[in-house]
Amino acid sequence: MNGGAHPLHARRLRLLTQDEAIVLMRTDCHVCKSEGLAARARVLLRAGSREVIATLYQIENDWLGADEAGLSEAAWQRLGLNIGDVIEVQNAPTVESLADVRRRIYGGRLDARAFRGIISDVVAGRYADIHLATFVAACSAFPLNVDEITHLTAEMADAGERLSWGVPVVSDKHSVGGLPGNRTTPIVVAIAASCGLTMPKTSSRAITSPSGTADAMETLAPVDLDVATMRRVVEMEGGCIAWGGAVRLSPADDVLIRVERALEIDTEGQLIASVLSKKIAAGATHVVLDLPVGPTAKVRTDIAADKLTEHISIVASSFGMKTRILRTDGSQPVGRGIGPALEARDVLAVLRCEPQAPKDLRTRALVIAAAALELAGVAPEGLGGALAEEALATGRAWAKFQRICAAQGGMREPPVAPLTRALAAPHSGILTHVNNRKISRLAKLAGAPDDKAAGVELLARLGDQVTAGAPLVIVHAEAPGELDYALAFAAANMDMFEIEV
Amino acid sequence: MNGGAHPLHARRLRLLTQDEAIVLMRTDCHVCKSEGLAARARVLLRAGSREVIATLYQIENDWLGADEAGLSEAAWQRLGLNIGDVIEVQNAPTVESLADVRRRIYGGRLDARAFRGIISDVVAGRYADIHLATFVAACSAFPLNVDEITHLTAEMADAGERLSWGVPVVSDKHSVGGLPGNRTTPIVVAIAASCGLTMPKTSSRAITSPSGTADAMETLAPVDLDVATMRRVVEMEGGCIAWGGAVRLSPADDVLIRVERALEIDTEGQLIASVLSKKIAAGATHVVLDLPVGPTAKVRTDIAADKLTEHISIVASSFGMKTRILRTDGSQPVGRGIGPALEARDVLAVLRCEPQAPKDLRTRALVIAAAALELAGVAPEGLGGALAEEALATGRAWAKFQRICAAQGGMREPPVAPLTRALAAPHSGILTHVNNRKISRLAKLAGAPDDKAAGVELLARLGDQVTAGAPLVIVHAEAPGELDYALAFAAANMDMFEIEV
Repeated sequence: MNGGAHPLHARRLRLLTQDEAIVLMRTDCHVCKSEGLAARARVLLRAGSREVIATLYQIENDWLGADEAGLSEAAWQRLGLNIGDVIEVQNAPTVESLADVRRRIYGGRLDARAFRGIISDVVAGRYADIHLATFVAACSAFPLNVDEITHLTAEMADAGERLSWGVPVVSDKHSVGGLPGNRTTPIVVAIAASCGLTMPKTSSRAITSPSGTADAMETLAPVDLDVATMRRVVEMEGGCIAWGGAVRLSPADDVLIRVERALEIDTEGQLIASVLSKKIAAGATHVVLDLPVGPTAKVRTDIAADKLTEHISIVASSFGMKTRILRTDGSQPVGRGIGPALEARDVLAVLRCEPQAPKDLRTRALVIAAAALELAGVAPEGLGGALAEEALATGRAWAKFQRICAAQGGMREPPVAPLTRALAAPHSGILTHVNNRKISRLAKLAGAPDDKAAGVELLARLGDQVTAGAPLVIVHAEAPGELDYALAFAAANMDMFEIEV
Repeated sequence: MNGGAHPLHARRLRLLTQDEAIVLMRTDCHVCKSEGLAARARVLLRAGSREVIATLYQIENDWLGADEAGLSEAAWQRLGLNIGDVIEVQNAPTVESLADVRRRIYGGRLDARAFRGIISDVVAGRYADIHLATFVAACSAFPLNVDEITHLTAEMADAGERLSWGVPVVSDKHSVGGLPGNRTTPIVVAIAASCGLTMPKTSSRAITSPSGTADAMETLAPVDLDVATMRRVVEMEGGCIAWGGAVRLSPADDVLIRVERALEIDTEGQLIASVLSKKIAAGATHVVLDLPVGPTAKVRTDIAADKLTEHISIVASSFGMKTRILRTDGSQPVGRGIGPALEARDVLAVLRCEPQAPKDLRTRALVIAAAALELAGVAPEGLGGALAEEALATGRAWAKFQRICAAQGGMREPPVAPLTRALAAPHSGILTHVNNRKISRLAKLAGAPDDKAAGVELLARLGDQVTAGAPLVIVHAEAPGELDYALAFAAANMDMFEIEV
């Protein structure tokens, strides 16, 4: 009985819960009775050799038979089930590593063994959301020290794939804290690879934003590369821009980041472990970090930036990794487009040296590329900028980018939205503020990131003079319904733009 | 649109989630589209003047129509819905007080205003479980100081009903950390009231245990008293034993305790605020705390007990409350029965001075009653014990208990289980350890607390000689199915008793 298991017919509910494993069972089902299960119990589901811990909700209607277990899509996928399969359900075993989470809450510090247990249970899906939130809060309210950050980073990096590239210098870049439209990655990789660096870049898709780098890149070439394909691309061209989700680097990070976003918590220790564990797992040896500092950015003051810079350097160097941290302006979106295809068009404009290419995106990409070239020793200190500029201006970076896309499966043109609608400036004056959160919402309502061509095009930047009735923003959509939702939202929220008379 | 609302037909799913508000909607429903909602979004449900914040899960099957919202029982009840009602659904507004939770995670301390906002949002159901877990962890990993505990206590007490009794001394008692079978309350109230104290006691029902004090008392008299009835009983008899859930004292405590139990976190600050906020709200002026100390009890060392005692006294005195804290033995269950009716029988045996009454329960009740009598000034220091003993031995306490039961709605005999089965000792020797967790599980599988007569009767105490084949435990059940579940569990888990040869 205890430790025993009870078969139930698995029902696929197509219940979407993000990645939360949920099982619905009837209160009068024999498993609930014999295992003494109550609503919100944690239960172990087993199908053959696969298992997952899920949260139980009980139901007292006729949606399910008493011999059925209804599974959320996340639980169904993780168990790899087919229609008609039988699963076993029992009380979930004690999650041993939670004792270490509690120990930290009671003021104890954690060693490598403790972090190993916690991260392994997190990756295996044994933590409920409240456990994840508790771990995150416990590592924040009582801040991690440098030793703990180092242990956490090492265990996170070890918990998934580890890539290696057979070259002494592997370059990488990362932007801390998403700034809308900040798609420097494809440009930086193209410049770096065209100058001889090895830069096997993995990027994320949007979680809550209208576009991730992987979403934008996907409108230009396939990004869903397995490790073998990624390796072939990098061996041929020196660089790639792949979706990180396909290679499972530091999978604990993906789980923790979801909870941190929901809580809007991202303290120093977690930020460092998150960024560096991904880079270590990706095999990077030389990493440039773009650190936007500004009143509404993730890092708000120079003092905070100093401390973060110092701690990142200490932790990174304990893994033999060299870092350079650049402070950049975090006050407004980067480039013109928000949404996968619109951001890709900005990237193409910069790479093709088109006259209307967004200057801010070009400048940011050059600064990061210059740092990467200097850090890797390809350019002497102070001369990285000139080398990066030359690579871009001569078309060498653009040629490299096209070859990378071809190697990833073929370059393509980003799609164009069939429907566009301009929103006019309500009055004349100077544009003084753009609400990034509302702009992102507008792009999402228009259909981004699922509709690749959907999004928002900003026609003015902070400080620009705008004229009453002239277009300020263009909304792009693929379907009339989405366009309507976006326009209705925009009509009620034109205060997202502040225009000073 | 933003701030707008969208009507959907409410469907009662009879989905049991403890008290978690959940709403299911189809991905293709117009509200998900127009509000840009994704799975696990927090949404505001409104029906007339009532509203509740719920977690959204999306479903892609035909269980729901695209114009329907399926509600968990908790959400349905809180909105007070009827079949056919229409509700409005929109993005949940920002929960302002979460900024203070985050502030504390970043190392800031909280003042009365901050705790007021947090507690008010907790009581209104605006916090998701991850927010509750974060608040609990943030107040633990970076421990609350005495000022913060005092503010938190005050705000928790203010967030629900506040009782007052029109007398200068109102006595109360509380046992810290549940010890199975520790049902001193009915005995202490009877002794105290029979000696002239005012003791309007509220108790809880079982949440995860086989019986709460209110469950046991309910087999003897009604406990579901409203404030008016409670007042009438106390005015007539000086004391009552009521279910606290009916009077809504410190409702935030009930919410926080649920999460603390799930996390197995109960740090000092939270413990103090939990206990004292309930007592302040109940109008208590003189409180005796029973603090079991032992290697597996909540408080494990004398040093921890000293610190807790000091801090409780400081916080209590800032509310003008006098406290006395008793350290008691926390090494094994108290009394003989585990389960509502079986525990009530132990209580009756002590009150009736029956020769087979459990001595440990009797002694504990006398010690607590003595302290209450001395603290209230009814007995001089050192003479409380004699007065309590006299009240019990002369039958005065028993007479008072019967009158209290009559005033609460009528005394009754606890039910007797139709099915019992003895479990024999597997071999002879000295009983050296009882696994409280497994004993509780056994009692719950037998049907407690829902089946009032169900539970477990322990026939031996630690240190007793037991004989192979002689009964060690009797399982009581109301239905054959439950008896079978309990016996199957017992057969596989007789290691819950350690018998040294």
